[in-house]
Amino acid sequence: MDRLACYDCGETYAFGDAVRCRCGEPLWFEPDTASFDWSDASGTTGGDATLGRDTLWRYDSVLPAAAPTGFAAAAGGTPLFRAPSIEPTDGPRIHLKVEGVNPTGSFKDRGTAVGVCRADGPIGTVSHGNMALSVAAHAAAADREAVILVAEDTPDSRLAMIAQHDPHLFRVRGDYGRLYRDTVDGDLGAAFLNSDAPLRVAGQKTVAYEICEAFAPDAPDAIVLPVSSGGQASGVWKALRELDAAGLLPSVPRIYLAQAARCDPIARAYRRGRSRVEPVEGEPTAAVSINNADPPSGNRALAAVAETDGGVVSVAEEAMIDETDRLAADAGVSVEPSCAVATAAVRELATAGEFDAADDVAVILTGSGYKYGPSDPDTASVREVDRTDVPAAVRDAVS
Amino acid sequence: MDRLACYDCGETYAFGDAVRCRCGEPLWFEPDTASFDWSDASGTTGGDATLGRDTLWRYDSVLPAAAPTGFAAAAGGTPLFRAPSIEPTDGPRIHLKVEGVNPTGSFKDRGTAVGVCRADGPIGTVSHGNMALSVAAHAAAADREAVILVAEDTPDSRLAMIAQHDPHLFRVRGDYGRLYRDTVDGDLGAAFLNSDAPLRVAGQKTVAYEICEAFAPDAPDAIVLPVSSGGQASGVWKALRELDAAGLLPSVPRIYLAQAARCDPIARAYRRGRSRVEPVEGEPTAAVSINNADPPSGNRALAAVAETDGGVVSVAEEAMIDETDRLAADAGVSVEPSCAVATAAVRELATAGEFDAADDVAVILTGSGYKYGPSDPDTASVREVDRTDVPAAVRDAVS
Ligand SMILES: [Zn+2]
Ligand SMILES: [Zn+2]
Repeated sequence: MDRLACYDCGETYAFGDAVRCRCGEPLWFEPDTASFDWSDASGTTGGDATLGRDTLWRYDSVLPAAAPTGFAAAAGGTPLFRAPSIEPTDGPRIHLKVEGVNPTGSFKDRGTAVGVCRADGPIGTVSHGNMALSVAAHAAAADREAVILVAEDTPDSRLAMIAQHDPHLFRVRGDYGRLYRDTVDGDLGAAFLNSDAPLRVAGQKTVAYEICEAFAPDAPDAIVLPVSSGGQASGVWKALRELDAAGLLPSVPRIYLAQAARCDPIARAYRRGRSRVEPVEGEPTAAVSINNADPPSGNRALAAVAETDGGVVSVAEEAMIDETDRLAADAGVSVEPSCAVATAAVRELATAGEFDAADDVAVILTGSGYKYGPSDPDTASVREVDRTDVPAAVRDAVS
Repeated sequence: MDRLACYDCGETYAFGDAVRCRCGEPLWFEPDTASFDWSDASGTTGGDATLGRDTLWRYDSVLPAAAPTGFAAAAGGTPLFRAPSIEPTDGPRIHLKVEGVNPTGSFKDRGTAVGVCRADGPIGTVSHGNMALSVAAHAAAADREAVILVAEDTPDSRLAMIAQHDPHLFRVRGDYGRLYRDTVDGDLGAAFLNSDAPLRVAGQKTVAYEICEAFAPDAPDAIVLPVSSGGQASGVWKALRELDAAGLLPSVPRIYLAQAARCDPIARAYRRGRSRVEPVEGEPTAAVSINNADPPSGNRALAAVAETDGGVVSVAEEAMIDETDRLAADAGVSVEPSCAVATAAVRELATAGEFDAADDVAVILTGSGYKYGPSDPDTASVREVDRTDVPAAVRDAVS
């Protein structure tokens, strides 16, 4: 369970000896899962008074940490359901994996929960969004110190949300990409659970375990998700590799990644047939949570796509905003634009003939839209009415 | 399953014939639960690709609606864990039931999910907060019309959050309490899933089923929750009555209710030994979600307290704000002040000697604090630093 491996060159390391491979690529945990079966998913978590609720700890036999009690026990176990109302004509079937229903409202709680249970001492992260909030909250719950490094231009409203969990919170002037590498390379006195940290990727993979178990003994035809650093894409790919090796997939789902066109380094490399991602000069986009111009696990994300015969899609800004509105109005799910980019990608892939009507596509909706409010606050539809006129107005509206 | 009953005078009605009793009190569903056992909690929901995740539909045998597929299948099944870090010295043990981990971030999804599955046609509600958001989202997911009536002073930011789910949204000038009664008494062409609607209370009761099952065959000594309309308190009491009648409680947990001192009609009636709640002139409070000066299920909430030997606590504004901060900083859970009032009440009850150190107290944290941002945005703790100074600054902070 404690062996780390490089997906690219195959080199292995003991946990604690390295975070990235000598070849430059990120490492991941390489547990022995050849004999894993769904019956090993126990479905119970610890705790003196915890209902036997399914969470990510259902898969503790393939994780580098034992099931905890308390706050960290609550991550994962998110809903998955079909949403016919947003499916394109002629398919495919769209199944939404709603990760906003995690303790801090995003998929990041999976990796943080595993990380905080295994890492010693203070934990930290370089992030200004979902990951920062998740690390700060989990540290608070575990009575551990947290170090959160945010970029200089992070808005105060976002800082206040993180600050309520009382971390050491630093607004850092200077190159954000280099800051990220500083925390990987240096010893800062805290375990940095960044997006591609092996502990985080181990936790993040559980979303694909959940999706595949829901379809077992079948499997979805594709899994579609937003990509930023490439860490979550790595986790999904790792899960599929493990489940395939264990003989639990009739066929391996294709991994499709979605980016905002205004900042799409992984999509660019994909379109050009490259296996290495080059940094781009991104433009501002409403998809702030995936606005990553120099993704640290970009090459690994590209490999996930190539090995599963998937793809990477760039989504135009307007299509992404429209899709955010569609998910809220037609599927009842409020998401960030960074997240709607994934169902928008399904729509484009369907138009391009990449899916047929009988395909089952699981889409990972990474985070709740309620945390940061609607991307496009619009109260134009609100009608003003006197109380005595309500009956007539309502009957008129619903008739 | 379809019989409604009055807790007070005992009168019964067929579902659809009445919402309130001729005596004036609200009705609730009176299913035949005498032979209910925990083994009847099946733990599976429908859906072609839904993981067998525990949700409120685990208790469908005692609910007036059958387990659905899709969005409504996802409500309930929230985490419950002990939080030693916020327990008062000398106890009691505090177990947090985190209802913010519901599809729209609050406990209201329980009643809405049951309501939308059973009611026909358009659904509606009189609310400007969690209930409005929940009804709007569930209607959108079910491809049904929603009618949301909000008070005149509802802020635009809150309206925009509701509006994203595309309901018929009316800002109503006039008396809010009378508006509420209009929707109960009149036929507006929509099924109003207000706070004390029998369908809603049936769904809301499942939180107490979950709490009690987690402790079975024991039971918590007390359940503490915020009170506003009295609908959720009614649901908890109904669950305890049903479980007690089924012989599943070694002793019935005491129900304690918490209000903000600035608007505390139920606490006032309790202190005066009354069995009827009188409307008050409330003052503005940070506990906006429970700022109800004329609670429609107030009498029933008082009865719940009296019958279980519990109590009602008024919490001062400052104690409530401090408690909101404490939950975020020490337990990792971001909540609204309207919700923190409940753990603040535990603190006061402990000081008053109402609990002993060995008592198990389950606290219902009704809603996520992330939806509306921190009540007291504070970025004073943020430190500005150059990238090159980060290692020294971090090492200094965590040492
Ligand atoms: Zn390597
Ligand atoms: Zn009656």
